Amino acid sequence: MDIYHPSQDHLTGMEISFGGDVGRSMKGGQNYLVMETEAQGFAQWVPYPGQLYLQAFSHLASGANMVEYWHWHSIHNSAETYWKGLLSHDFEPNPTYEEAKTIGADFDRLSARLINLKKKNDVAILFSNEALTGFNSFSFGWGSRESYNDILRSLYDALYKINVGVDFVDPTSSNLDNYKLIVVPALYAAPDSLLTRLNRFVKNGGHVLYTFKTAFSDQNVKVHTAVQPAIINEACGISYNQFTTPEHVGLKDDPFHVGKDNTVNTFMELITPKTAKVLAYYDHPVWGKYAAITQNNYGKGLATYIGCLTSEAINEKVIENVVKAAGLWGTDQELKYPLVAKSGVNQYGKNIRYYFNYSASPSSFIYPHKAGKELLSNTEISGKSKIDIGAWGVKIVEEK
Amino acid sequence: MDIYHPSQDHLTGMEISFGGDVGRSMKGGQNYLVMETEAQGFAQWVPYPGQLYLQAFSHLASGANMVEYWHWHSIHNSAETYWKGLLSHDFEPNPTYEEAKTIGADFDRLSARLINLKKKNDVAILFSNEALTGFNSFSFGWGSRESYNDILRSLYDALYKINVGVDFVDPTSSNLDNYKLIVVPALYAAPDSLLTRLNRFVKNGGHVLYTFKTAFSDQNVKVHTAVQPAIINEACGISYNQFTTPEHVGLKDDPFHVGKDNTVNTFMELITPKTAKVLAYYDHPVWGKYAAITQNNYGKGLATYIGCLTSEAINEKVIENVVKAAGLWGTDQELKYPLVAKSGVNQYGKNIRYYFNYSASPSSFIYPHKAGKELLSNTEISGKSKIDIGAWGVKIVEEK
Amino acid sequence: MDIYHPSQDHLTGMEISFGGDVGRSMKGGQNYLVMETEAQGFAQWVPYPGQLYLQAFSHLASGANMVEYWHWHSIHNSAETYWKGLLSHDFEPNPTYEEAKTIGADFDRLSARLINLKKKNDVAILFSNEALTGFNSFSFGWGSRESYNDILRSLYDALYKINVGVDFVDPTSSNLDNYKLIVVPALYAAPDSLLTRLNRFVKNGGHVLYTFKTAFSDQNVKVHTAVQPAIINEACGISYNQFTTPEHVGLKDDPFHVGKDNTVNTFMELITPKTAKVLAYYDHPVWGKYAAITQNNYGKGLATYIGCLTSEAINEKVIENVVKAAGLWGTDQELKYPLVAKSGVNQYGKNIRYYFNYSASPSSFIYPHKAGKELLSNTEISGKSKIDIGAWGVKIVEEK
Repeated sequence: MDIYHPSQDHLTGMEISFGGDVGRSMKGGQNYLVMETEAQGFAQWVPYPGQLYLQAFSHLASGANMVEYWHWHSIHNSAETYWKGLLSHDFEPNPTYEEAKTIGADFDRLSARLINLKKKNDVAILFSNEALTGFNSFSFGWGSRESYNDILRSLYDALYKINVGVDFVDPTSSNLDNYKLIVVPALYAAPDSLLTRLNRFVKNGGHVLYTFKTAFSDQNVKVHTAVQPAIINEACGISYNQFTTPEHVGLKDDPFHVGKDNTVNTFMELITPKTAKVLAYYDHPVWGKYAAITQNNYGKGLATYIGCLTSEAINEKVIENVVKAAGLWGTDQELKYPLVAKSGVNQYGKNIRYYFNYSASPSSFIYPHKAGKELLSNTEISGKSKIDIGAWGVKIVEEK
Repeated sequence: MDIYHPSQDHLTGMEISFGGDVGRSMKGGQNYLVMETEAQGFAQWVPYPGQLYLQAFSHLASGANMVEYWHWHSIHNSAETYWKGLLSHDFEPNPTYEEAKTIGADFDRLSARLINLKKKNDVAILFSNEALTGFNSFSFGWGSRESYNDILRSLYDALYKINVGVDFVDPTSSNLDNYKLIVVPALYAAPDSLLTRLNRFVKNGGHVLYTFKTAFSDQNVKVHTAVQPAIINEACGISYNQFTTPEHVGLKDDPFHVGKDNTVNTFMELITPKTAKVLAYYDHPVWGKYAAITQNNYGKGLATYIGCLTSEAINEKVIENVVKAAGLWGTDQELKYPLVAKSGVNQYGKNIRYYFNYSASPSSFIYPHKAGKELLSNTEISGKSKIDIGAWGVKIVEEK
Repeated sequence: MDIYHPSQDHLTGMEISFGGDVGRSMKGGQNYLVMETEAQGFAQWVPYPGQLYLQAFSHLASGANMVEYWHWHSIHNSAETYWKGLLSHDFEPNPTYEEAKTIGADFDRLSARLINLKKKNDVAILFSNEALTGFNSFSFGWGSRESYNDILRSLYDALYKINVGVDFVDPTSSNLDNYKLIVVPALYAAPDSLLTRLNRFVKNGGHVLYTFKTAFSDQNVKVHTAVQPAIINEACGISYNQFTTPEHVGLKDDPFHVGKDNTVNTFMELITPKTAKVLAYYDHPVWGKYAAITQNNYGKGLATYIGCLTSEAINEKVIENVVKAAGLWGTDQELKYPLVAKSGVNQYGKNIRYYFNYSASPSSFIYPHKAGKELLSNTEISGKSKIDIGAWGVKIVEEK
């Protein structure tokens, strides 16, 4: 795959993680090759010291077995003249190239312990190309520019920020039962069979987080003629048949304690709970009687439903809620972005613990896992020890 | 006709009134049918409680004999999937549908007293499709986006806000003499015969309010080769041959007492009065010697000329001035928007008095007309009695 | 040539001066005819009193031998209906026309002393249509909208504001040695021969001011494969092989004392000085070790290099620096914009000194040259005398 992303002060690692999780999942959990990623790239992408190194090991932490740059040297003609390679047009060493050399040396030294990383995740995001195409044909109405991927990414990013590893599944996946929590953004177009399967997943003890616009139409983008959200209303314990555009709308009594971020925007479904518990009502003189976010016990499982676009802060609180409810809150979740934790099992059967500091400020953290060796510095790490991590820094612990 | 308009916090009734006045006038004062108007409509149009009812009776108050929604139920495929009907896609009752049922019931009960409403207005707006096409070809110059209808609506809306009922006339109308005041926005392209007729209308005792850009070109959009405004300069007692774009321009000494709204924008003619009284000069170091708004006695009538785009507040003050000068200021003009008054004569020859509260705040007013019966509540109303009117409320009095 | 420009509060004279300098230079220093310039023009161009007169004599001061208006009378049909002439559509006198009459009368009276003005400038701007086409194909990267002429104008305008007369030269010009200072904006595409010639110009004692992006590619827009800036790095004593997009970047320690204008935007080269003196470093946590603006003695001359887009204020300070370094700072440079000074030699061999007040505020200045006669008022002027100049005023002294 090719992965390009913002850099400098805007480098987050999210696109590296997202691209890797999608690619790995599409290969059924196998490792993948990064065929292209940015070297110097565009003028606004020239990496700060440490960033190219951080990016390279972030690819490995998501399961990449190779990192290849576009391209070796900058080209001297044509449209991609300013899509710059490791070398500038002058073929001379430069800071980006010098850093790439250290990446190569460390890959050479450590690859045996780092490649073929196997990852086992308890959380999956259910994506659908039919839903993407269907939703994007309408978005939230004429003139609306939000896309399916904006909604999906808002949930993915919230999981990334609390270090919850995810796989991706799609309507053809037969492995839903491998997961404890499935996140379902805007599954606008879906066959009844998939929705029924998701109901059964919950009934059998699974957790699902849905957003608005899920189950609105069938796989042919024909809107359901029954109560919304179609079929999954059974697991969600809610219904709605009207939706509107929020103006000056928040969540009543700021239930997630997010202060000025207590906002709803762009789209809101006017939800009536049946059996669901209401996590948040709208705060609005007319729409205040409707639910915005609900949660429902169904069978042995739990179905959570977000009925509106919210601020990033609210999204993150809801994600935290469902991760905790699914019993998936661990020590790595206490380390919050910009400290990023990734893990997997290497080809020797050892746990590999990656820690990344996606920030220009040096930081430190209490290493929460079993004792091991920090591979880059080749130093022993005991459990519960403090690890210092520099600006845009990387630490890799192989557990004993 | 079809009438669609903003809703929720942006509902004003102006488009309903405007569409109705145009349609009724185009039919020579006959009643008309609303073939389409919004039910739930787009997400941002879902009506607040009371709004659908308010809208329906507002159509009747302008002379509609029917209100039909687009459409009965929301459609399940294609481009208008989100142009929602009275019923949502689920065919189940919903708040909009429930409110529509009350409209149907009240129409059924009261139609005999409400349909075939006859309206007699003393004010007409002269519109012209030739002027629209001609003006819009140039607007105020390259890059300018203002359109003829923006100018026409700014005057219409100001009349609406003080409850002055209007008809529309056009260059083919032979009934100008039925009116006491004719408002003429940007009559950019007009034959000499029409301008001469308007001069005669004033000379014979009529009142006319003109704006800038009137009479600039003939009916073939050929600019006049004589002093501007062509021909009507005689009735207006002014001339100009330069115009410019205001920057930091207001009206000298804030003659209309509108404070921060004392602004001129986009376009200004540099007017020299001949016999006209100057209602406002420009406030600008260079253009301050020119008149912005003038008024001239001509024969037995009065011609007022607005030479520039002004704020809404100034517009409303000028409209108030000309309505008063024409002797048309009555008790309904004391009830200002968001209280809207409409009236007409029903098929029993009785005066029907509509009062609408285009606001989310309940209000009250002293009913200024003869005693009668409030039809919706079937209660007697005496003259000068206080009437309470709820949020988005409607009252209809049939005079005795 | 045709010269159109902003007017009213936005009138600066820059476009008149720029157009004149380009046109005169393209004719090898001969005088030129202004075939079209604005009379009333668009609505936003209607001249304030005095402006048309000021503009007319500004054309002469740059070497025009004629000023002709588009057009005599405003036209009554078609696309240019609102491109207004000296007369409005009514063919009647108006303030613009009345002022044009005074211009004609003064041209008639004074032409013999004013036409055929010869100008001798020590500063040239090197422009290149190849560089323009090459640079504009890429600008600063996809999505960037800055053009070659924006960069050229920023330097031209800074020279204009300190009354430094300039000629224009291009890659075919054989007269570079006539100049003491050559300003070279964004000479993106250039043959090696031109760059070598510029090196030789400096070596022989000339001064050059370069900006970023100069010498990046050859005349076929093939990027050089050697160190940047190619070839001229020898005279400039610098090199770079990375460049980026500034965010929150200024110049370290505000070296030009411009306060809040101490900003860098859009593009910055990461320059390493070899022999050059650094006039300014970047102020940024990562890029702070790189130079932004440098100056290098090379042979008997001096090469200054601006590596980034800066504020107008910084640009003006750098221009002031290089003008002073070239020994070109004179008494007219102490009169700063909006007081504009232009000069030349008339056909009687006398120095003509123009002074323009491009401002709505009357001003005064100490006339810094030899005694002469102010031609418009026909009054004697002694050296060092105070001259009052009105809003948008003109003074013309013919030295004795």
